Amino acid sequence: MANLKSFIEVGATSHFPIQNLPYGVFKPSQNDTPRIGVAIGDFVADLSAIADLSLFDGPLLKGTKVFHQDALNSFMSLGKPAWTEARKTLQSLLSAENPTIRDNKTFREKIFYSLCSVIMLLPANIGDYTDFYASKEHATNVGIMFRGKENALMPNWVHIPVGYHGRSSSIVVSGTNLKRPWGQTKGDDDAAPTFTTCKLLDFELEMAALIGVGNQLGEPIPIAKAKDHIFGLVLLNDWSARDIQKWEYVPLGPFLGKNFGSTISPWVVTMDALEPFAVSGPTQDPKPLSYLEEQGNNSYDVQLSVSLKSPKMTEPQTISNSNLKYMYWSLTQQLAHHSVNGCNLRTGDLLGTGTISGPTPDSFGSMLEICWKGTKPLSLSSGEERKFIQDGDTVTMTGVCKGDGYQIGFGECVGTILPANK
Amino acid sequence: MANLKSFIEVGATSHFPIQNLPYGVFKPSQNDTPRIGVAIGDFVADLSAIADLSLFDGPLLKGTKVFHQDALNSFMSLGKPAWTEARKTLQSLLSAENPTIRDNKTFREKIFYSLCSVIMLLPANIGDYTDFYASKEHATNVGIMFRGKENALMPNWVHIPVGYHGRSSSIVVSGTNLKRPWGQTKGDDDAAPTFTTCKLLDFELEMAALIGVGNQLGEPIPIAKAKDHIFGLVLLNDWSARDIQKWEYVPLGPFLGKNFGSTISPWVVTMDALEPFAVSGPTQDPKPLSYLEEQGNNSYDVQLSVSLKSPKMTEPQTISNSNLKYMYWSLTQQLAHHSVNGCNLRTGDLLGTGTISGPTPDSFGSMLEICWKGTKPLSLSSGEERKFIQDGDTVTMTGVCKGDGYQIGFGECVGTILPANK
Ligand SMILES: [Ca+2]
Ligand SMILES: [Ca+2]
Ligand SMILES: [Mg+2]
Ligand SMILES: [Mg+2]
Ligand code: NI
Repeated sequence: MANLKSFIEVGATSHFPIQNLPYGVFKPSQNDTPRIGVAIGDFVADLSAIADLSLFDGPLLKGTKVFHQDALNSFMSLGKPAWTEARKTLQSLLSAENPTIRDNKTFREKIFYSLCSVIMLLPANIGDYTDFYASKEHATNVGIMFRGKENALMPNWVHIPVGYHGRSSSIVVSGTNLKRPWGQTKGDDDAAPTFTTCKLLDFELEMAALIGVGNQLGEPIPIAKAKDHIFGLVLLNDWSARDIQKWEYVPLGPFLGKNFGSTISPWVVTMDALEPFAVSGPTQDPKPLSYLEEQGNNSYDVQLSVSLKSPKMTEPQTISNSNLKYMYWSLTQQLAHHSVNGCNLRTGDLLGTGTISGPTPDSFGSMLEICWKGTKPLSLSSGEERKFIQDGDTVTMTGVCKGDGYQIGFGECVGTILPANK
Repeated sequence: MANLKSFIEVGATSHFPIQNLPYGVFKPSQNDTPRIGVAIGDFVADLSAIADLSLFDGPLLKGTKVFHQDALNSFMSLGKPAWTEARKTLQSLLSAENPTIRDNKTFREKIFYSLCSVIMLLPANIGDYTDFYASKEHATNVGIMFRGKENALMPNWVHIPVGYHGRSSSIVVSGTNLKRPWGQTKGDDDAAPTFTTCKLLDFELEMAALIGVGNQLGEPIPIAKAKDHIFGLVLLNDWSARDIQKWEYVPLGPFLGKNFGSTISPWVVTMDALEPFAVSGPTQDPKPLSYLEEQGNNSYDVQLSVSLKSPKMTEPQTISNSNLKYMYWSLTQQLAHHSVNGCNLRTGDLLGTGTISGPTPDSFGSMLEICWKGTKPLSLSSGEERKFIQDGDTVTMTGVCKGDGYQIGFGECVGTILPANK
């Protein structure tokens, strides 16, 4: 696997070697129709073109139209055997040994586009978006800041992969800029709330699982089968307006403090590509209830980083290095919990992990934690200071798995905050 | 308007006179394709048939295919002028004075189906579902039970139409039975949670607004324009597992305690039909912030009732009589608040009102309140007692507006709770 090479040259720092082959939805140019592709090196391979050339010759995908779509939903809904067949076919077609495309100029011209020239769209029609709260470090940090050290973790936190419903309409693809929101906020000493622009705008470093195959209402997904329901992962920036959130969230949870926009990366890295990077997660104590008990390596070693670039800076500055493996509750525990009451998941649903913070301040996943509620401002290379995100700031998240002789990555999840409406 | 009559006979207790004409999605029988209809008396008028007969002759709907759909979304997305044109055309076509359909047997056979013979489906593709908490009586009751009289209402409640994101995948149409959910619960004196079937299953009497036309991300809907974005209302039973909810909801809100199923009525009563029943809502003190300030009558006099029927009962028993007009925050305030941060609403989104409780115990909108946390059991006509909903119990909600010489109604929102999975 590590030795597999493509005839497409892939640089050592590329996120997209033949071992990865993440799926995305793209348009070659503005007026083209959307279609599905995989990233390989500095190129996108157009799977609708590969299908039109009858090169998907496996039993499940022969003659398929699932790649002539503006979302991955149709392909994902075919289930794991079709995902495996597609990956096998593509790894063969793109390998250095296979002349089919390699030696056919017409084929190559029909299939490949330069990665930096295409327009990436949202990878899926996302029906429901759920956001979990699965990093113990993050939940503890937030708890300490708002309730003190003694009551940092809520009593339910070590028993439940706590989650809540988010807003799917405002999920945008990487590169979409978002306006600073307006909202109600109230200072602790104010008599009444005011209507104002958000002053405490934050990011949250997260990843998210895209549901490939769902379940019927009333039929929970047992944890042992949970992994086969996940198609792949993306990066997620769950932008948060801390001042709006603080005033609104009791007792029913975050609402307008979150739903002004959430950004995901365009390339969906499959569970098959991630499997070599599976590791064991943190020890869980107390032992979870039986419906959450699982065997084997259910965490993934994905090195995550966040950079910030203000308009005055010429280069982005790394402000956090974290890792998906720090997450306390696994993706499969989140999924099993989500459906245990019979709630139906559907193809295209998105399950955010919650902010992924590591054990040390340089691995915290939000400005709230990095600057500890504004008490430890961040110094930028431009000489500026930051406690929260200012207008014009660009936040970029990346994720990479370092393999033996290769690496696979998630590309970028980028967004710039624009000034609020007048 | 009150004198308008249809050639279809409509009984005095019917919910569906020509003044109503609510929209729904139906199939004449199991193997037919879904299409859109309006209810009139004991019949459904098939709008796809009316369109096929070229009887929609207005400028906006001539030749339209929006009624040959399995959801109202296409029609709704055309906006208010098209809704008005459809209503005008249908009120003319169905009126006692108009011979076009009245005197044409072939037309009548193509158009009308018996209401009790058709299969009703969900009226819309619901992208995002939001549930508010807009009844002061309900919020106060729940607050007293859980936090005592002094701290009953949270400080933000009188300033914010508090809401949270719900689950759209598990919204089902009236008549769909739901299984009792499993989940984690923990008694106050228990050392650890247990995994068990829900013991405190409840209903919540709500109504919900269906968004007809949405807004772009980043472009709030001003309150003065909010009404034109609402296509109509349905009844909503926001089933709730109180024991699961209690253990999970801090700090991020209700999740598995709610998302095992939410039931809506199939017929969408339009804002045009409701307009004669507009009334002023409760006085709001303190005065809302300016983005929530509005003029005129923004509440509606919809008489709501809930009945319960256990398997041992031969007749359902009314257990609550409430009214939409009790709601503190108006539908338009909810909508304006929802989008004020730039959150985009989309055609088909559903905005639940939250439990609608009135001032007296016989108008409370949930078992939690009616039986005051189980301390005041309800006596059923069968001699049984109820504190919460038991297996086999059927909960039916209705809503009626009593007009001058006519009434319009919402039909029913019905669901039976089935035993939990083994
Ligand atoms: Ca989050
Ligand atoms: Ca509710
Ligand atoms: Mg967000
Ligand atoms: Mg519900
Ligand atoms: Ni037709």
